This record gives sequence, C-alpha cells and structure tokens, in this order.
Amino acid sequence: MSLHVHWAVLAARKKKHLLLEKPTALDVTELDRILAACESNGEQFMDGSVWLHHPRTVKMKEMLFDSGLLGQVHLIHCTATSMGTTEFFENNIRVKVDLDALGALGDLGCYCIGATLWSKNYKLPTSVTALPDTLKNSDGVILSCAASLHYYDDDNQPIEKSTTAIIHCSFLSYTCTDLSISASKGSLHLKDFIILFQEDSAFFNCTLDAKKLVELHIGWNIVKPEKVVVDCELPQEALMVQELARIVEGIKKSGCPPDSKWPKISRKTQLVMDAIKQSVDLGCKLVYLKEN
Amino acid sequence: MSLHVHWAVLAARKKKHLLLEKPTALDVTELDRILAACESNGEQFMDGSVWLHHPRTVKMKEMLFDSGLLGQVHLIHCTATSMGTTEFFENNIRVKVDLDALGALGDLGCYCIGATLWSKNYKLPTSVTALPDTLKNSDGVILSCAASLHYYDDDNQPIEKSTTAIIHCSFLSYTCTDLSISASKGSLHLKDFIILFQEDSAFFNCTLDAKKLVELHIGWNIVKPEKVVVDCELPQEALMVQELARIVEGIKKSGCPPDSKWPKISRKTQLVMDAIKQSVDLGCKLVYLKEN
Repeated sequence: MSLHVHWAVLAARKKKHLLLEKPTALDVTELDRILAACESNGEQFMDGSVWLHHPRTVKMKEMLFDSGLLGQVHLIHCTATSMGTTEFFENNIRVKVDLDALGALGDLGCYCIGATLWSKNYKLPTSVTALPDTLKNSDGVILSCAASLHYYDDDNQPIEKSTTAIIHCSFLSYTCTDLSISASKGSLHLKDFIILFQEDSAFFNCTLDAKKLVELHIGWNIVKPEKVVVDCELPQEALMVQELARIVEGIKKSGCPPDSKWPKISRKTQLVMDAIKQSVDLGCKLVYLKEN
Repeated sequence: MSLHVHWAVLAARKKKHLLLEKPTALDVTELDRILAACESNGEQFMDGSVWLHHPRTVKMKEMLFDSGLLGQVHLIHCTATSMGTTEFFENNIRVKVDLDALGALGDLGCYCIGATLWSKNYKLPTSVTALPDTLKNSDGVILSCAASLHYYDDDNQPIEKSTTAIIHCSFLSYTCTDLSISASKGSLHLKDFIILFQEDSAFFNCTLDAKKLVELHIGWNIVKPEKVVVDCELPQEALMVQELARIVEGIKKSGCPPDSKWPKISRKTQLVMDAIKQSVDLGCKLVYLKEN
C-alpha cells in the first residue's frame, strides 16, 4: 500500500473531507479503501482534476451534450506532456517506484483519461490497449506511454457510433496539454486544457458543420474554427476549492449527503488507468472493462 | 491489377510524365510497375500530395530540421477525416472494392502517412500497428481506421530518441485535417494541412521552449503558441504543377534526369500504407518495415 493511501484513509477517519492530488492511488483497490473510509465517515471525496471546474469546461460540455451541436463523438485525441529535468528524473516522487509508481501515466495520463471519460459523459470504454512505445526508467516506472481506448455500446450498435480515444502522456516531450474531439458534425480543440495560457480568460476552437466545402475556382477551403472565449473570474484552482466548500457546507449545515459525482469520476479514471497499466504489463494486449 | 495502374503504365509508355492522384496504387508491387515504366522511359513521376508544395510546409521544414529549434520529434498526431454522404457510401470509387479498394486509408490515410514520413525526414518507421477500431463496409473496404507508427533507430539509441506517430483517417467524422508534432523543445500544430482555411495565406502554431513555466501567485501559465503566417501567391495546386513543369523542362531542354525525390516519397508512403493494411488484416499485429 502506498504512503499516500495510508494518510488519506487516516484523514477520512479523522473526519476530514478529502481533496486529493492525482493520481489518487496506485490502483482501484487502494482507491476503494480511501473511498470507503470517506463514505463510512460521511466525508466528501474529490480529486485535484482542476480543469473540470473551469467555466470553459462547462461551456464545452453544453456544446457536446446539451445542444447536440457536434453530433456523435468519433475521435478523442489527448496529449499531456511535460519535459523533466535531470533533477526530476533523479529525485522526483513521480519517477520513484516506491512513491508515485504510476509515473507519467499517473501524473499526466490521468488527465487524458479524465478528458476521455468527460467527453463520453463518464461512460467507461469497452476496452483499452497500450501502444507499443512505452518507455520506462531503470526501476520500471513509466516515463512515456500512449494508449487507445475503444467504445462499442453493444453488438447491435451501428459501427458509425463507436468512439476511439488516443491518449499520450510523457515526461520526455515539451509541455503540451492538448485535447481535441472530432465528431460527426464538428470538432472541438484546445491546447491548454490542464495548464492555462491565461488565468482570467480561456478559449477553445470549435468547427461546426457548414454542410459543404466551399468550392472556389482556385481551390477549396474548409470552414475556419471559431474561437469561443470564456472568461474566468476566479482561478480554476479557487473554483475547485469553492465547489468542495459548497458541498461541505451542505453536509455540515443542511445534513446533505456527500456528492457522489466526484468519487465516481475518480474511480472510473482509476479503473481505466489500471486497465492501461495492465495492457502495458501484458505487452499491449487488449484489456476489457466492465461498468461496476 | 487496378485499372488505375493499367492507364498509368500505358501513359508512361506513351512518353507522358505522370502526376498521379493518390492513392497511387493498391500496393507497392503495383506502384513499382508504374515507377518502372516511368524510369525506363525517362519520365517524371509525382503524386498529388499537394500540401508538400505549399510554402508553409517549407517554412515548417526549416524549423523542424534546418534550425534544430524544436529538438527531437517525439510524437506526431495526424488526423484526416471527411464525412461521407449516403450517395458517397453507395457510389463513390473510394468505397468500392474493385476500384479504390484501400478506402479511407488510401484516400485520407495516405496524407497522414505522408506527413509522418515528412516529419521524420522520410525515414521509414521501424514498425506499425493498426489500432483495434477499423471500421469496414460490407465489401470489406476500410471506412475508418487508426494506426500507430514507431521509430527506433537502432538498439544503441537512447530510448528518449524514439518517435511515435498516431494517425487516424475516416469517412465517418466531420472534415478535420490536423497535424501536430511534439518535440523535446517545442511543438508545431496546424489544422488545415490538407485543405486550407484560406488560399492566399496560411499559418501554423508553434510553441517553443521558454525554459520554465511562468509561475504566478494565482496559478501557472504555459507559453502561448506563436502564430506563424506564411503567404502563398499561387494556390498550392498551381505550385505543384509548376514544380512538375520545372522538372520536365529540365528533362526536355537540358537533358536532366527525372527528380528521384518524388517517386521515392510516393513509394515510402505506399510501403507504410501496405504495412498498415497488413496489420489491419492480421488483427492489429505489429508489422515491421525495412528500408529497401
């Protein structure tokens, strides 16, 4: 069991609500111990996926789900990379087998997995497979890996309705936090979904179906993406804490139960992370997931 | 043998220089027949990968290779999708098993393969693997597929120097022609690498290593991508024809040999396409390539 879990469980037993840095645990068994400790003590659990609290995320969600503007999501590309320094590779907890042993998958891949789940309204993929390029340090900690995640609703589903997500996380490439979602009627793209270009205002690019390519006598042009700007009065970190405080106030003052949405998100993220890790360990075999 | 090849070979024998729409052939054996016909008749061969002739591509190449500004390329993401209509799926040659039988891989995937090869200065990947989500029509023609391409120079190469490319091509998603290249010191991104947003001026986004994340008391920000604008006096299609005409003039007026660069590019693209097709047919097995 990781040290992390030990302290998280102790904190929950001491009646502390938990806002936990990701990765929240080494595997779902560990995470379930933390969630059980929170649940039995009536505490709120939330992980530090800060981008979920940004108003831009809310705006994109509206376009994806509420309006049906984009149609069926077919492809999700998500990249989270950050170049480590020599000091990082020698001493950081993120590359230590006895500390954050999930390495780049835990530290950066968790965002890509979270973004994929978010894009699919928190449906678990049917299966995942690691791609053949996992790089590890001498202790076997993942420094860079990629995976594809596959969604098939059921055997009767038209094949056009399947979705593929491709994620890539690495400590070996320059900082890049890209999310792009291609759907039947348009696409969304943002390049700063984890770390913002600007604190008080963010944007994403959106291309919507213009029915036809515009034919010109000198060639053909596609529709330019529209820049959708969303202001943010408070930093996303503050919004995350505000959301936690709101729930806790409900628990304390009005006897509301904890909000099950947040631990569910963390748990699904962990399940997918476990499956990808398993696929890495099995030499890129397809690993199936089940909702449970 | 496809009809395509029959006419291409006949044209070469009739002393015609060839500018061939992609996919240039069903497999490398077919393409080699065309290339041999051109070579033995002293004719120029070129395929219709029009983006290679755009001045923006030249500018990006400078940044990637000549200046070393971006460092080592680690990840290439390339997407080429275009939504087919009902009429397209019923009648278009691109979904007919006896015509352009490579389907989306031949029509759109060839651009992604070409962009990957371009990004790696025309080095062939060591291996490729199809991802598990290939969708086919009832005749077995690919409507959508994804693949990963892997570069390992040799056994003595540091693992940080490997490159992964992930490509996705589909007739089932909204038009999207994205190319993004992540490297150790920066990244390049463009969203209209095949079909342009604008005929006379194009841009790409470039993020260069700013050494450190800028730490602010309210959070942290990453460096915004710089927009690099490149004007284009002539449409890229005209530039392609101009390049062909330039070579042909050299052949005719000065007795120069045909430029071997263009058939080499087409042949490498075809070799990778064949390997991906083979991986699709083998249920996503890893397929190795050799320079030859």
